[in-house]
Formats: sequence, C-alpha cells, structure tokens
Amino acid sequence: MNNHSELFWQHYAISRLDRTALLNQEPSVLWFTGLSGAGKTTLANCLAKRLYDGGLLAYVLDGDNLRHGLNRDLDFSVAARHENVRRMAEVASLMYDAGLITLAACISPFKAERDFARSLVPAGKFVEVFVDTPLSLCEQRDNKGLYRRARAGEIVNFTGIDSPFERPVEPEITINTTGRSPGQCIDTIMDYLSRHDLIAAARPGRLTEKTQNA
Amino acid sequence: MNNHSELFWQHYAISRLDRTALLNQEPSVLWFTGLSGAGKTTLANCLAKRLYDGGLLAYVLDGDNLRHGLNRDLDFSVAARHENVRRMAEVASLMYDAGLITLAACISPFKAERDFARSLVPAGKFVEVFVDTPLSLCEQRDNKGLYRRARAGEIVNFTGIDSPFERPVEPEITINTTGRSPGQCIDTIMDYLSRHDLIAAARPGRLTEKTQNA
Repeated sequence: MNNHSELFWQHYAISRLDRTALLNQEPSVLWFTGLSGAGKTTLANCLAKRLYDGGLLAYVLDGDNLRHGLNRDLDFSVAARHENVRRMAEVASLMYDAGLITLAACISPFKAERDFARSLVPAGKFVEVFVDTPLSLCEQRDNKGLYRRARAGEIVNFTGIDSPFERPVEPEITINTTGRSPGQCIDTIMDYLSRHDLIAAARPGRLTEKTQNA
Repeated sequence: MNNHSELFWQHYAISRLDRTALLNQEPSVLWFTGLSGAGKTTLANCLAKRLYDGGLLAYVLDGDNLRHGLNRDLDFSVAARHENVRRMAEVASLMYDAGLITLAACISPFKAERDFARSLVPAGKFVEVFVDTPLSLCEQRDNKGLYRRARAGEIVNFTGIDSPFERPVEPEITINTTGRSPGQCIDTIMDYLSRHDLIAAARPGRLTEKTQNA
C-alpha cells in the first residue's frame, strides 16, 4: 500500500549528519535480542547509564513499554507479535536518524525480524546484541511469572516454550550473562562500541587523563 | 488489549530530565496541523534549520515520510488515517521523551486526533501550530496535484474537499501564511517558544552579544 500515488517524499533541511555534528556522537542501533527474562532491558538500562555518564545521548526502546503506547492496539497473536517488532525497528531507525544511540530491547525471536531491523540502518551502525541466557535460568528467575503460566498453558505462543527462538547466527555481540554482573556485560559492549568507533572513549575519562598528564 | 496480563512496565535508569540536562534544552512537541499544501512541512523544516543554527536538537516527523516506513501498512481509509495520526502522536511523544524538540507535520484534520497527541505530552510542552492557509490557495498551489485529483473524484475522503478539516479552536499559534515568507512565519514561532521558555534565546546570538558587550 505504500506505493499509493498520494505518497510523496519530503526532504529535510537538516540531516542526520548535521545532528551528528551537533551532538558530537555517532548514532547507532543496539538491538538486544533474547528470551523473556534474559536481561535485555536490564542491560539496555545499565548501558544507557554508562553512556550517559560518558556524556552520550542514548534512548531505550523497550518492547513492554511500547505496548502501552504505540503498540497498544496489538495483541499477542503471531501476526501482531511480528508487527510489534516491525514497528519497533521503524522507530529505532527514526531515533537513529535523530542522532541517538538507540537501545532496543525486544525478544525478536525470528531471524527475519532482526534482519529487517538491521536493514533500516546503514551497515556498521546496527549492533545485534544476543543476550544468551539459557532458558533454564530465565525460567528459574521468571520475574514476571510468565514461564509458569506458559507451562500451565495459560499463555500460548510463548517464546522458548511453545514458540521457537531462532538463535542469532552472527550477532555482533553475544553476552553470556551466567555468573556475570550487568557491569561486566556492559564492559563487553562498551569495548565493542569503542573498537568499532561507535563511541569515542568516554569523554570525561579522556579529560581526566589529560588533566592528569598535564 | 493493552491490559493483557503479560504486560509490564519497565523503568528506566536515565530519565527525560537527565537527557534534558545533558542536552541543555527543553524538549517539546510542535504539532503542525493544516490542509494539504498549507506549508506544514516547509515550516517545520525551516524551523528545524533555525533551531539547529541556535545549537538546538530538533527532529521533523513528516506524515508523508512516515508512510514510507512505520505507517507503510496503512491505506487512506478513514480508520487508517486515524491510525496514521495516532502512531505519529505516539512517536512524537517518544521523541519528546528522548529530549528532542519534535516537529510533527501532519494534516490531522480532527480535533480528537490533535487532542490525543496533546494528551501524551505534559501541559505546556505541546504547541499546536495551525498553519492557516486558505483552501483556495492550497488548491491553487496544488504542488502534489492532489486537489485536482480529488476534484476529479480520483481520490476520496480528501481533507477540505470531501472530508472535513476541523479548524483548531485554541491553537497555541496560528500562522497566516498568506503574503508572508517562511522566515517571517518562523519568527512568529520562535518568538512564542522564547516567550514560553521552550527555548533559550539562541545561544550563538547570546554569545555574540556578550562578546560585543565585553
């Protein structure tokens, strides 16, 4: 329906590159994928804090929270879950375009969904972060009580129980959370971002270093 | 469907206020409403440029452009047009939350739609900008050839022709574009934003002034 002849493309006076220059940071999309309870949102939030402390503007898009607003019309049918991920991917690309380091936390169990999200962002600016917490541990935690209900048949199409999770084949980052603190996991991500020029070394740190050397 | 018991609200480590402090600017939503061809997108773009030149981070959300991405599943039926506006309002509120001065350009012909967009943003941070260009002038311009096609019956439910435009009752700003340049219209908006503490007086200007006074 998007080839409707009423559709025009409006050009913008200020581009992403202008915003990048203004913010003095490189926008990117970090896409956290993994089972329910794997720790996606926890890690995204810890990362947002770490980036903020480094003077960087990040924004967390959380699948649960979007369902209270943009995606409130969607239920948990297979089609609606796909649409949920599609919209999150589209919003992530808008946030990217706005200049932000965008942290999307979304089960996104299917490779095609994650590949779609990736397709909306220039190569190298999309970072798939696989939060690889074993099902057994997620189920043991069961913070939201959802696994118990899925096992009891009260929830159907639940990822990991009666709906598949397609493990990422080549994610940029795989986080094994078992026995590691959120801070340690964030170190791994920060290291990746730094090595790939997606963040400069944290600015306050650099300034401190210079001061110390002076 | 949003009261589904699988839904949780995730709390964020970094808040809008933190981002406001980091950016050193007040986020807001400027909602440009008016007929097709009234000049909404032109004004939003000019304003983005003016804000950028003042060192402020703004982002233009354009109805036409969203239909190439987030809203590509929507056609031009009455229900789909409502959904189009609803989603733009939700994305505008996310952009607001992210800390941006968000410029949404969207015909949004119905009061209820605009009131919904307003309801998502704290009082005083939503600025309804009515781009009050007469139908006759919009139709005379007809940049996209849509009025001609609507008159010919090739497009139905076209705002101003066979679908109503409910004029804003108490918009924060009304822009009469007739005989005025975009720059003059932007002056009006900048003046409003400044008087309502939504922007500080443009920073480079202040700096220049200080330099001149020194």
